[in-house]
Amino acid sequence: MNIKYFDHVAANPMIPEVLDSMMPYFKEEFGNPLSVYDLGMNARIAIETAREKVAALINADPSEIIFTSSGAESNNFALRGVALAHQNEGKHAIVSKMEHHSILNSARVLEKMGFVVTYLPVDKYGMVDPGTVRKSINDETKIISVIHASSETGTIEPVKEIAAVAHEKGIVFHTDGVATVGNIPVDVKELDVDLMSMAAHQFYGPKGAGALYLKRGKRINPLIYGGIQEGGRRAGTENVPAIVGMGKAAEIAAERLTARMEHVKKLRDKLIVGLKNIPNLHLTGHPDKRLPGHASMVVEFIEGEGMLLLLSSKGIYAASGSACTSKALKASPVLLSMGVPSSVAHGSIVFSFGEDNSEEDVDLLIEEFPKIIEKLRAMSPFSGKGWEGIGEGGKCTAKN
Amino acid sequence: MNIKYFDHVAANPMIPEVLDSMMPYFKEEFGNPLSVYDLGMNARIAIETAREKVAALINADPSEIIFTSSGAESNNFALRGVALAHQNEGKHAIVSKMEHHSILNSARVLEKMGFVVTYLPVDKYGMVDPGTVRKSINDETKIISVIHASSETGTIEPVKEIAAVAHEKGIVFHTDGVATVGNIPVDVKELDVDLMSMAAHQFYGPKGAGALYLKRGKRINPLIYGGIQEGGRRAGTENVPAIVGMGKAAEIAAERLTARMEHVKKLRDKLIVGLKNIPNLHLTGHPDKRLPGHASMVVEFIEGEGMLLLLSSKGIYAASGSACTSKALKASPVLLSMGVPSSVAHGSIVFSFGEDNSEEDVDLLIEEFPKIIEKLRAMSPFSGKGWEGIGEGGKCTAKN
Repeated sequence: MNIKYFDHVAANPMIPEVLDSMMPYFKEEFGNPLSVYDLGMNARIAIETAREKVAALINADPSEIIFTSSGAESNNFALRGVALAHQNEGKHAIVSKMEHHSILNSARVLEKMGFVVTYLPVDKYGMVDPGTVRKSINDETKIISVIHASSETGTIEPVKEIAAVAHEKGIVFHTDGVATVGNIPVDVKELDVDLMSMAAHQFYGPKGAGALYLKRGKRINPLIYGGIQEGGRRAGTENVPAIVGMGKAAEIAAERLTARMEHVKKLRDKLIVGLKNIPNLHLTGHPDKRLPGHASMVVEFIEGEGMLLLLSSKGIYAASGSACTSKALKASPVLLSMGVPSSVAHGSIVFSFGEDNSEEDVDLLIEEFPKIIEKLRAMSPFSGKGWEGIGEGGKCTAKN
Repeated sequence: MNIKYFDHVAANPMIPEVLDSMMPYFKEEFGNPLSVYDLGMNARIAIETAREKVAALINADPSEIIFTSSGAESNNFALRGVALAHQNEGKHAIVSKMEHHSILNSARVLEKMGFVVTYLPVDKYGMVDPGTVRKSINDETKIISVIHASSETGTIEPVKEIAAVAHEKGIVFHTDGVATVGNIPVDVKELDVDLMSMAAHQFYGPKGAGALYLKRGKRINPLIYGGIQEGGRRAGTENVPAIVGMGKAAEIAAERLTARMEHVKKLRDKLIVGLKNIPNLHLTGHPDKRLPGHASMVVEFIEGEGMLLLLSSKGIYAASGSACTSKALKASPVLLSMGVPSSVAHGSIVFSFGEDNSEEDVDLLIEEFPKIIEKLRAMSPFSGKGWEGIGEGGKCTAKN
């Protein structure tokens, strides 16, 4: 079956040159970067070269990049590491309700340790208001974390404005850039963030490679203690091939960023137009301030998982923002926090485009998806008047 | 230059079949294991197959294996995760002075959090006495961690006996099996340990893949919080290719274990015989209860780093147990805790053998190493009467 992959927020296929760049480090260059002989030195040099490339992609200094194993590790490291490094000065943290589980669950751990956490509300687009951030700050606040863009809604948050609010009070600001780095322009100096999480497999690099940008001079406690790797800030023998691949993926992202964005935006916009006549389908997230290759929506009267399975039977792969994969059929907390009713939130579906997609892929999606919706709705126990929605996207009419 | 690699404790070259097993997961099988469609399911199945293979290598149940990114992560996770899960019952931990930095520095973090940690002394072979463990236990003790074998001294600790002492008092016992799993027979049921750390690159698998054995029913707090990966115990998108490679390396280790041990023991013993006439060279670690492919020694009047550099100029790669790589010219704390004088500990050197070594490799080492020692000693500012040593290994005579 010819696969149409529209789930780039879950994982990206690696670019072949990225894999090529990694291969020597699986073979002859297998040394431990801490070893003094040349096999070790070659691995050290490879890591430092990758560090320069990742730094260049986000306009950081190489010394400000700490390699980790994943975006989730970077998020845990950032929120908990900064909170703990400052715990004697204050024990209040602020995060948004749009955060990834790795931030939300790290926040809950801080609560168990005696921290107070404020969970910022969002508007109907999933947008955090910098004014609300300002009002949430108190004398105990030492860390604020707001996601750069949610992979569930695609909404790009005003992190520059929120960072400015944080810095007015001398508070450290972290943003989870897992969905943005390599996919839209990200400049840590222009945004003026203090920490930013990244994951290589979100920009056509390998799994097992993440990074944390930590602005020079900012304090953090390690998450993984041990040896002197990463300047003593992240222990463990470095995953040299994955780090090299992350560097190569960053280099390619920097070169192709404009073309990449234009390509996926064109496909996304084509899909949106192609779906506009489906009744009771509502786009979610911000209409403009969003990831260029990201289309998220709720389809009333049916469940996200049903759509995914029927799409998959046609070789079309997408994601549901709902928490089906956790086996608990709960509506997505992110959508609920945006005011989407629980019954509607169950019908969440996300299409995320990549370099590897073509217009023909989208044509097939536009052909198949409405038929699948029709089929599922014919079987659906739900009906009645539809949700009035957020006034964007497809027409919102009652089913009957 | 034809390389003779005797630093398998630092990193192993990957077995080609291991890399072959990983390749599909870098290419067409790039799905996120959480995705519901078949690309995700294939990744999930690959992870579960790897889990079975790793479990089989140590006689565990697959449900008792948690994949991590490294041995260091597994050690942090184990010691801190168990200590924190039990902190309301008691805040005393016991570790040995032979532990890896990832345990020792995790112990220090626990101390900062209000825990009390006992650091167990060792004898001249680096061996922990189970009786000392028993005497160190108090009502607050909830976790004991003793390394299975030190990569610095090669000594295999009596973990079965220590586990039995821990269990007399209902205390959880962890062992760091990074140096042993895949290199000597390891049976978690026979040893009766509750947790064991592993790292794939120590048994010819990839970097970036580690695991923690956690006996069913034992409580642990996650180190990395977030999604539902690894049963909610270790978040972050799984490094599927590395996990698959770890599984393959475990499968191969199980098949080849006896041959692997015999091969490296033969080479190690040949080296020991070949070096026996070097004066003021003392073997370190236990003479018999040690890793089969591991030769560790101190060479008086010279520095480990000098030996490594001159060896490396001949294409011979080895490690120094001393902390040169940390750029701080401190003597190894492990050797000091075994009673080796600081001046002597600086001359530490470790040769660790692997499947890829041949008898000819060892012949070259036996030819070159004495010349290098002679050369360095001729330049050395140190002299005088040598250390009387531990009564094992090479002849111990005064230099002049």
